[in-house]
This record gives sequence, structure tokens and C-alpha cells, in this order.
Amino acid sequence: MRIARFSTGEGVAFGVVEGAQGEEFISRIDGHPFGAIQFTGERYPLQEVRLVAPMLPSKVIAVGRNYAAHAREMGGEPPAEPLIFGKPSTSVIGHGEAIVYPHKLSERVDFEGELAVVIGRLCREVPVERAHEVIFGYTCANDVTARDLQRKDGQWTRAKGFDTFCPIGPWIQTELDPADLAITTTVNGDLKQSARTSQLLHDIPKLIAYITDVMTLIPGDVILTGTPEGVGPLEDGDEVSVGIEGIGTLTNRVVPRD
Amino acid sequence: MRIARFSTGEGVAFGVVEGAQGEEFISRIDGHPFGAIQFTGERYPLQEVRLVAPMLPSKVIAVGRNYAAHAREMGGEPPAEPLIFGKPSTSVIGHGEAIVYPHKLSERVDFEGELAVVIGRLCREVPVERAHEVIFGYTCANDVTARDLQRKDGQWTRAKGFDTFCPIGPWIQTELDPADLAITTTVNGDLKQSARTSQLLHDIPKLIAYITDVMTLIPGDVILTGTPEGVGPLEDGDEVSVGIEGIGTLTNRVVPRD
Repeated sequence: MRIARFSTGEGVAFGVVEGAQGEEFISRIDGHPFGAIQFTGERYPLQEVRLVAPMLPSKVIAVGRNYAAHAREMGGEPPAEPLIFGKPSTSVIGHGEAIVYPHKLSERVDFEGELAVVIGRLCREVPVERAHEVIFGYTCANDVTARDLQRKDGQWTRAKGFDTFCPIGPWIQTELDPADLAITTTVNGDLKQSARTSQLLHDIPKLIAYITDVMTLIPGDVILTGTPEGVGPLEDGDEVSVGIEGIGTLTNRVVPRD
Repeated sequence: MRIARFSTGEGVAFGVVEGAQGEEFISRIDGHPFGAIQFTGERYPLQEVRLVAPMLPSKVIAVGRNYAAHAREMGGEPPAEPLIFGKPSTSVIGHGEAIVYPHKLSERVDFEGELAVVIGRLCREVPVERAHEVIFGYTCANDVTARDLQRKDGQWTRAKGFDTFCPIGPWIQTELDPADLAITTTVNGDLKQSARTSQLLHDIPKLIAYITDVMTLIPGDVILTGTPEGVGPLEDGDEVSVGIEGIGTLTNRVVPRD
């Protein structure tokens, strides 16, 4: 099932997306999509609504250097244990919303295409073998990063924490085996990143066990699983797309901050 | 005005604390304390209610090495610009709640007493001279840190992100000049940290301008302004108190994780 959030101009709601590409429609859900779903009966062609971020997470926990080739392109070795960091909830945007380039503060803003996991249950200290029970679904994400500030600060919070620096979407796919999916990032149609999720150094059950040994996750929280090699810069006007097999494609345009 | 959140056993509410030390009572507020406050008429002796975290922030942004003597005791020089990092909302607890020591993962958990700022308005790109307009009030905080994991990971998210590692309270003081307040931390009554907020390298208006140049803050968000020198370890059973002149004292006991 594909769960989206959308606006019709009369407020924002969750909905279920059905139909083939280019012919999708969206059926509105009463309330939130955790637990049994109740439809309101309202149904719209997807092209007539505006998608927004498919979830408003209380927190986004991301994983650094979780593909070996990317760890090396960043000038280091992959870490033995997952390296986690946070992105603020205010950085989240949806498919079709603009990534705002803060030129006053950064001269190098990079894309990082990633598979994202959306949590479905309040959980802590989840064993690896039960991690699947707390997963609601999967979506595409772009861990947008001011690379110059990441290097300058040491801590990554500022570089990765700007408003609009966490596009997720276009929707959450709830039925998917994430073990070996093709993931690509394109900028203006040019292929920049291409990998498979089977190359993740620490797989999703390991990440969930590792993170929930530290902190409680709540429904809607998002885990970004790391980016493959091929990260590179964005410029004003660029259109960046993260596509994942079995999910769909997340596209965002880059605009300068006023 | 002192704004607290409390439980009477019949749910949690905001309230206003009045009266002299040891004789305080709390008057319940209808809804939240942002904007005009409406009292419900219910009033309890403070000793008969249980205080919880005075705010549930959407995010906690903290500042590293913001007192020169602490930067040096950590083996570095104070940074020219504020060094920001995040603590997850799930790490927040209130006065009287337990700090849970994760012995399985860390052998060194430290206290860090700090002045915290609570944001009152949705804001971004706030100029220094208007920072006072977005402040709701001030409270005491303890930026509890697994020092060994902080050193090991490089990124501070895990070390500072454990559940219960962000005590704040006991309440929010909304009328206070934060420029030169005494701040102390004691463990089992022994004085460990003693400084004045006038020693902050980057003052509160600067921090608000710096952070909101990156990310939007929303009502209830909390900024931890940094810890002075004298940080040190906690052990099971310890009682740690952060006291700030004009606010009050935040006390928490340390217990082992099961």
C-alpha cells in the first residue's frame, strides 16, 4: 500500500495511492494511517492534489557512511558500528517542494539519495529479529548537506539541519522487501548515484536495534539508512530525483534563499 | 511567572507556580501557556502534585563549548562561532524523574548543568536585536552525556541522545534577565560546577540568531546554552542538581537501566 499526505486546498490529509503510473488516484483516510485504515470515501486524481511530506516525524535519525564506497569517497573507512546523527523535524519537506539553498552561509550543498524507513510503533530496545514488527514502511529521502559546513563544524547538525534539507516521499510503501532494491539519484536527468540496498553495511534490522538501544522511536519517526557513492553538488534551478525500486521517485527543485 | 507541567494522577496540565519556597501552590491553566493564560480555577499545593518536564519540545538544540574554561577542560579552544548539536525530544525528562544509566553501552556518564531557553514563537532568521521577542522563558537543564561514546563516535548524537539524558525544569521562569545569573551543579550536595551566565562566550541573542539562520524554531523548542567547567561523572544512586539564580533547582536521581 502506498500512503501519502496531500493537500486539496482545504487542509492536509493522509490518503492511499492506487493505480498505474500517470493514472493514480488517491483515496482519503480518516485520521492517521497507523492501525486499521478507514476511508472517508473522498477520492481524487493524484494530479489534482498537491503531495506534501508523507509523514511529519518527531525525529529523523540518519546513518553516516553506511555504504563502503561512499565512506571511501568521503576520505575515510566505513565505521565498525553505525554512526548516527539527527536531522531536525523542521528540515522535512515533501515531493515537489523546493530545497532552499542558503547561499549566505554555504557555497557547497550536496544531494545524498537514501532509502528511508518509517517507524510504525512506539519502541525501544528492539532485538534484530523483531525489527520488522516496528516498521510501517519505506520511502525515498534526500539527506541534503552543506558539505562545507559539515567539514567546518565537525558536528553535522548545522550542515544537515537547514529547513528543506530533508525531502522525503513521494509516499510510504508499506509492502516491500528492502533487502536488495535499486536506488538512483539524478540531477536534471543525469545519473549521479546508482547502487543497491544490498550494499548497506549495516542492514535495517541492525540499524533499528542499534538506534532503539539508545532512544525510543515513536510512530512516524524516520530513519535514513545512508547514501551510496556519487554524492555531488546542487545549484539553483537543479531538479534532483531519488528513485527507489518498488517505491517511486522523489523530485525536488533547488531555489535560492531570498 | 513560573510555568510548570504537572500530573495529579488525572492527566497532565500546565500550571502557574506561586508562593515562597516550601509553600508553593500551582494554579492549573486551560490548554497551553503561549498567549493569554486562562486559569481553570483548580489549585493544588505544589507538594501534592508530581512535576513533569515543563515543556515537550519538538526539538532541543544545544551549544558546545560555550564557556571558555569548559572548552579548555575538554582539550580544545573555544570555537569562534557557536557549535550546535541536537538532542532528541525523547531524551527530555522533568524534575524528579530518573536519569537512566545505560551500563551495557557506556562506562562514563557525565552531568553538564546549563541554562536553557524556551522559545515562545515560530521564528526563523531572527536578528540579534529582536531575539528577546521570541523567548518564552528560561529553565535549568542537564545535558547528560555518555563521555566515552562522545569520544568514540565523533558525532555526539548517540552520546547525548539516550532516553532521560535531557532533564529540564523544575519550571520555566518567564520574567528574568539571563545576562548574569549564578549557575551551580551539585552531586549528592557536593559543589561540582559554579559559574555565571555572563561567562557565556556567545550570548543568548547571538545563539538565537545563529540557530534561526539555519532552522525554524517553534513554540516550546529548547536551546541549551552550554555548560561551564567542572563536568564529571555520575554513578547509580547519585542525586544531581542544577540550580540557577532566579529560576530554581532541577534535581534528578541516577538509576541503572534494567
